[in-house]
Amino acid sequence: MEKSSKISGFYRLSIEARRKILREWADLTDAELAAYDFPPGIDPGIFDRMIENVVGSYTYPLGIATNFRVNQKDYLVPMAIEEPSVVAAASNAAKIARAEGGFSAQTTPPIMIGQVQVLDVADPAAGRLRILAAKESLLEKANAQDPMLVKFGGGARDLEVRVIPSPRGTMLVAHLLVDARDAAGMNAVNTMCEALAPDIGRLAGGRSLLRIISNLAIYRLARATATFRPDLLATDTMKGTEVVEAILDAYTLAAVDPFRCATHNKGIMNGISAVVVATGNDFRAIESGAHTYAALQAKEGAVVKPLTTYEKDRAGNLVGSIEVPLAVGLIGGATAVHPTAKANVKLLGVKGAAELAQVLASVGLAQNFAALWALATEGIQRGHMELHARNVAATAGARPEEVDRIVARLVAERKIRIDRAKEILEELRASGSR
Amino acid sequence: MEKSSKISGFYRLSIEARRKILREWADLTDAELAAYDFPPGIDPGIFDRMIENVVGSYTYPLGIATNFRVNQKDYLVPMAIEEPSVVAAASNAAKIARAEGGFSAQTTPPIMIGQVQVLDVADPAAGRLRILAAKESLLEKANAQDPMLVKFGGGARDLEVRVIPSPRGTMLVAHLLVDARDAAGMNAVNTMCEALAPDIGRLAGGRSLLRIISNLAIYRLARATATFRPDLLATDTMKGTEVVEAILDAYTLAAVDPFRCATHNKGIMNGISAVVVATGNDFRAIESGAHTYAALQAKEGAVVKPLTTYEKDRAGNLVGSIEVPLAVGLIGGATAVHPTAKANVKLLGVKGAAELAQVLASVGLAQNFAALWALATEGIQRGHMELHARNVAATAGARPEEVDRIVARLVAERKIRIDRAKEILEELRASGSR
Repeated sequence: MEKSSKISGFYRLSIEARRKILREWADLTDAELAAYDFPPGIDPGIFDRMIENVVGSYTYPLGIATNFRVNQKDYLVPMAIEEPSVVAAASNAAKIARAEGGFSAQTTPPIMIGQVQVLDVADPAAGRLRILAAKESLLEKANAQDPMLVKFGGGARDLEVRVIPSPRGTMLVAHLLVDARDAAGMNAVNTMCEALAPDIGRLAGGRSLLRIISNLAIYRLARATATFRPDLLATDTMKGTEVVEAILDAYTLAAVDPFRCATHNKGIMNGISAVVVATGNDFRAIESGAHTYAALQAKEGAVVKPLTTYEKDRAGNLVGSIEVPLAVGLIGGATAVHPTAKANVKLLGVKGAAELAQVLASVGLAQNFAALWALATEGIQRGHMELHARNVAATAGARPEEVDRIVARLVAERKIRIDRAKEILEELRASGSR
Repeated sequence: MEKSSKISGFYRLSIEARRKILREWADLTDAELAAYDFPPGIDPGIFDRMIENVVGSYTYPLGIATNFRVNQKDYLVPMAIEEPSVVAAASNAAKIARAEGGFSAQTTPPIMIGQVQVLDVADPAAGRLRILAAKESLLEKANAQDPMLVKFGGGARDLEVRVIPSPRGTMLVAHLLVDARDAAGMNAVNTMCEALAPDIGRLAGGRSLLRIISNLAIYRLARATATFRPDLLATDTMKGTEVVEAILDAYTLAAVDPFRCATHNKGIMNGISAVVVATGNDFRAIESGAHTYAALQAKEGAVVKPLTTYEKDRAGNLVGSIEVPLAVGLIGGATAVHPTAKANVKLLGVKGAAELAQVLASVGLAQNFAALWALATEGIQRGHMELHARNVAATAGARPEEVDRIVARLVAERKIRIDRAKEILEELRASGSR
């Protein structure tokens, strides 16, 4: 009989009972099921309340980026990521930046946008004015939804209304601007939008439909800058001043080509998202905000723009800067309940969401600088190679004591492949048994 | 004395020694340090080889989405995510879709793009032709870098060369198109680009600089479609046909407004990235590819486009479709070495990267449909509310046996806030102790 994934009442089962179903479904061995086990420091109840249909956990390695100094304060930065080289690259870039004082970072106020869509408005231009005329009472009603946020200095700040033509008729979209303070803001903003939607629809003389936060958080920006001295960028074969020019050339391609820009921005997000994950924040929200902001910044037929910029200052130093929307929070969501996220926030020592965003922007800039430095000099593969080679060697069946010798050979040959690792492993074992 | 994050030799220390530094750095308690402990099913050595400066792990809850049927095959889908409602929403959407046969999905061949940038070309148009004239030998040299990939039916397929004006002079960019088979392709493509770069630079009469994969994988697309019957979309207050029209209205805003589109696409990625994480793939690569593709699809002054489309078929059903670049792999990277990623691939039962991409596209469509259904009917908050309320109740200090009663009150009042949870908790305890 064919298997059916329609399993009624799965959500009501215990974790153990769900696992039993998985075992039968895919013939999982005990060892495979054990790979889902919770870490000893995590109460399974916390996870079972966090999402639905929980059967266990999926774990990232957590590495620490060193050398970070942002606004004259030192940080050890926790990064949860599966990709080799990212933690090392961030640490190296931060080391070069700190020679000139480290990163200087700022944030705008933590203003999030909530959207309320209104349809079937006979007179959209006038409808827009009717909503705007009621702004004060709408803001008041919004703030009544979350007195705690208001108490801590946040709350609804302003209201904008846009008129948008569409294939299904002209729509009104009200934007509620909410200062979310130290929260990412999703719950506060969504609750406010849902409360205001009927009023806004009535004022416009139409009917409200969508009422939800926007991840394109253009008013909640983090910015950072750092100076990289040429003499610290030199390699065996390139002078520092040559590396500066090469980085500017490499950066420029991202500014003119979406195929390069996608990867340029991906490298930035390697740094940012690894810390976003480690602090229990929502990386899909941050990724969407960053990449869509990159598209919003593109002009004159361009598709996307790099989130970073590189220039040469009068002294010939390379100066990097970044600007990116970063709607991260320290209260609410997983950040408030996940023990490792809480430990990571304490480790970072950030006092608020703004400070976290400043660190994130700095890490993003560091990551991007490190990638450009590698691309402008030895190529990206060498940095990836050694750790990748360690994985390949392990996958090929090497025992811990055999790994180092196989890695050395793979890297020297610049052939990091399982087939080659297996050959070397066989050679090694053959020569060892002789 | 001020603390310095510049800790020399940190990378050479043992995990235990690194932890000791963290403890002193941030005054971490034993319980906080224990939050970094590895799960019992994970060999710390695997993680220590995966990235640098490892001190422990960060763990996602893993939930199972039920009801998925893609191309006539049933799947239980592992999702690693911290956000409430995502797993439940995917399961619900898949249940509605399977009434009409589930998801129908395809993929293009797994062609990745590698870029080689060439600068200082005196005659770029002619330089482009010189590179193209040498295509066969360049492809041959590329394929010599990875005989295993060629053996399994992949390898370099084609070469394109673009001429791109820039503020630092006209650049040539060669695009090497590589069939990556069941790998994400980063290592194979980067190695090939690095090998070809000197030749390409010489052929063009310039110098090569960047040589790296592009995450804008426009040739590696996954597509899925599903039909949702109106009678299965009805609520207490809305007929199914009304819900279909409301979903079309809600979708249309994403098609005309980047502020809505960012969140629309974020919802799609909630589904896709949760499975990308669970299978050990690189979510930054997938997020960058998807969002930049959304920007590339935008035309006539638009910023981004939704990755999904909704239409009404002749019978009045809602038909959803998705098209998204999905450069995921089953071999190499964390997928090959992470025990939980391996268990999840086995649980999914996918035979290749193409099948995984088809499931991912289907999950993305399901997630997006579920969000639109919620937004078009009861609003997004109700679905989020109960689980969010469970977290809030736990954060407010409720014991397991107190959680349910507090959640019920919070949801009934539509006030999911810690201050209110604390009040209710005090009330409960006061009345209980009386």
